[in-house]
Amino acid sequence: MFKAIVSADTLQETLDSVSVLVDECKIHLDDDTLSIRAVDPASVGMVDLDLAATAFESYEADGGLIGVNLSRLEDIAGMADAGQLIQLELDEETRKLHIQIDGLEYTLALIDPDSIRQEPDIPDLDLPAHVAIEGRDIDRAVTAADMVSDHIALGVDTGDDLFYVNAEGDTDDVHLELAPDQLIDLDAGDAHSLFSLDYLKDMNKAIPTTAEVELELGDEFPIKLHFDIADAQGHVTYMLAPRIQSN
Amino acid sequence: MFKAIVSADTLQETLDSVSVLVDECKIHLDDDTLSIRAVDPASVGMVDLDLAATAFESYEADGGLIGVNLSRLEDIAGMADAGQLIQLELDEETRKLHIQIDGLEYTLALIDPDSIRQEPDIPDLDLPAHVAIEGRDIDRAVTAADMVSDHIALGVDTGDDLFYVNAEGDTDDVHLELAPDQLIDLDAGDAHSLFSLDYLKDMNKAIPTTAEVELELGDEFPIKLHFDIADAQGHVTYMLAPRIQSN
Amino acid sequence: MFKAIVSADTLQETLDSVSVLVDECKIHLDDDTLSIRAVDPASVGMVDLDLAATAFESYEADGGLIGVNLSRLEDIAGMADAGQLIQLELDEETRKLHIQIDGLEYTLALIDPDSIRQEPDIPDLDLPAHVAIEGRDIDRAVTAADMVSDHIALGVDTGDDLFYVNAEGDTDDVHLELAPDQLIDLDAGDAHSLFSLDYLKDMNKAIPTTAEVELELGDEFPIKLHFDIADAQGHVTYMLAPRIQSN
Repeated sequence: MFKAIVSADTLQETLDSVSVLVDECKIHLDDDTLSIRAVDPASVGMVDLDLAATAFESYEADGGLIGVNLSRLEDIAGMADAGQLIQLELDEETRKLHIQIDGLEYTLALIDPDSIRQEPDIPDLDLPAHVAIEGRDIDRAVTAADMVSDHIALGVDTGDDLFYVNAEGDTDDVHLELAPDQLIDLDAGDAHSLFSLDYLKDMNKAIPTTAEVELELGDEFPIKLHFDIADAQGHVTYMLAPRIQSN
Repeated sequence: MFKAIVSADTLQETLDSVSVLVDECKIHLDDDTLSIRAVDPASVGMVDLDLAATAFESYEADGGLIGVNLSRLEDIAGMADAGQLIQLELDEETRKLHIQIDGLEYTLALIDPDSIRQEPDIPDLDLPAHVAIEGRDIDRAVTAADMVSDHIALGVDTGDDLFYVNAEGDTDDVHLELAPDQLIDLDAGDAHSLFSLDYLKDMNKAIPTTAEVELELGDEFPIKLHFDIADAQGHVTYMLAPRIQSN
Repeated sequence: MFKAIVSADTLQETLDSVSVLVDECKIHLDDDTLSIRAVDPASVGMVDLDLAATAFESYEADGGLIGVNLSRLEDIAGMADAGQLIQLELDEETRKLHIQIDGLEYTLALIDPDSIRQEPDIPDLDLPAHVAIEGRDIDRAVTAADMVSDHIALGVDTGDDLFYVNAEGDTDDVHLELAPDQLIDLDAGDAHSLFSLDYLKDMNKAIPTTAEVELELGDEFPIKLHFDIADAQGHVTYMLAPRIQSN
């Protein structure tokens, strides 16, 4: 059983966070939380999303699992105006999701969850460096790095106590250093890893410029990015595997 | 003889209503009205437009007929700012239309009216159901239906006293029901017809979201859509032939 | 030695004025002025730009010459917000330009000036007609002319004391006449020349609609267009060679 009412903004934010990595996903409909875990086809980027029942206008669920086509669901949500409410109701028998927006009813055929790529186990890493940074600074770094290279190094300099971004191209380079007073928080630790810019650009699309983003970093380790959605009633974690550094 | 001054907005609205169906048209320049009738190449959609002399800043005509390339005339009108006035003057000898916008003069070669597809006779049908609906509700229905199908059913349910829209796709469906309190007016009568979404999408482009649109519907009959333009100094009627239903 | 701080707006305006004609250019870094002269590959359009040291927040230079890729430098400047300051510093040894925007450092490899097309000598012509006109009127004339033709005639009618623009297409024509009261200034003299619209469209892109543009015109002679940038701390001159008229 699943029946919920949610604002168009919240639904769009939720779907966008996942659709930057995958086209289809499984959605867990537990009694107090809607949750999604997914990994991209190359197993390089992962997403773990939780949206509390309190993020909804109303929410009733009892532990179901549905498979959805994300871009289709995004298109439907995109028909609603910003403040409008969207009603969702699962028909268990037909395995269809009834979506209502101000009298307009869309009947969406669901996907068999077994046909969707398996959900990843997102490892509980104990990474030495923690950085809290504004979404707009991630956007600036990723946009600039993309002008010169297809990969980007993120690290923490424990000596000078700063977070840095480096991108080295064939002729041009991009470098950004942020000291503690330019960050929301810095818990320095030895960290330097290289990442594919394609993935970070996709993740960056889903990060609001005003969001406070927590980064967890290590030395040639995956990076984790955490941020809130839906007025902190929802939470997204991205994990991105490092690229092997050639020196 | 034809000489007129009209606001850029009014001219654009007029041209757009016709250009969604045809590339070229004949314009009748009668002494108190400018009028256009046209049918698309497949004879599926028709338009009948009247613009009263009172919609113009000034208007002098004596029953002439000109043939124009609509997209060309739209491009010219598009050079004017929203509030600007456009002067039109026909040179009978050269068969050219002189168009002036704030000192800029564009000389447009006209098309021989005889070379343009014949104007349709728009039949005076006595259709059983009449619905008055906001332009934005037509827009919502057409946009949603377009996500699942290439045709759309419009009808009136006399039992439940409501207007409905149905679009059935291979996997997903769209359904919209509007009761009298969600409509401007409903004069129920037996009606259900299937239409090509391509045509309705084109017509929808020319219908302002704030317009009050009168629909006339029947059972496997053409639909007529009426709405005002130019502050009710002009009027547009679209007629769209039904598709044969396969059951 | 070169070290300067400049607003993003001023830098963008400067680069745009030159990039409409060429992809790479030499920049002269004199002690009180930054200047650029360039000619397009076909030697039809030329630009001569001066930006005074006073247009910068701070400026130190001693007569250097650098070669730059304009679109790359425009992309970098485009990362800054409208009001933001951009720091430029030349590393003489590595021949790289260090560009800083709010902590983000971009290291741009310069181009050997000797590998860039030679700078033109812009002739000091004594043209008989001078017209001062708003940028928006140039924009209107060029946009309209582009609808009918690929060349445009500009001239002054000394008899009627007006500046005119003519474009003749295969079927349609565009004509604009501006009398002294519709111009900022008119110093009439015999002038009529035909120009390639492609070049004038490119130059028009860099002319602000609110700019006061000085035109110098002659009879089958090049045209010169002058306008200020950077709150009159900078100045741009375009020169465009005429096309041969076929009569």
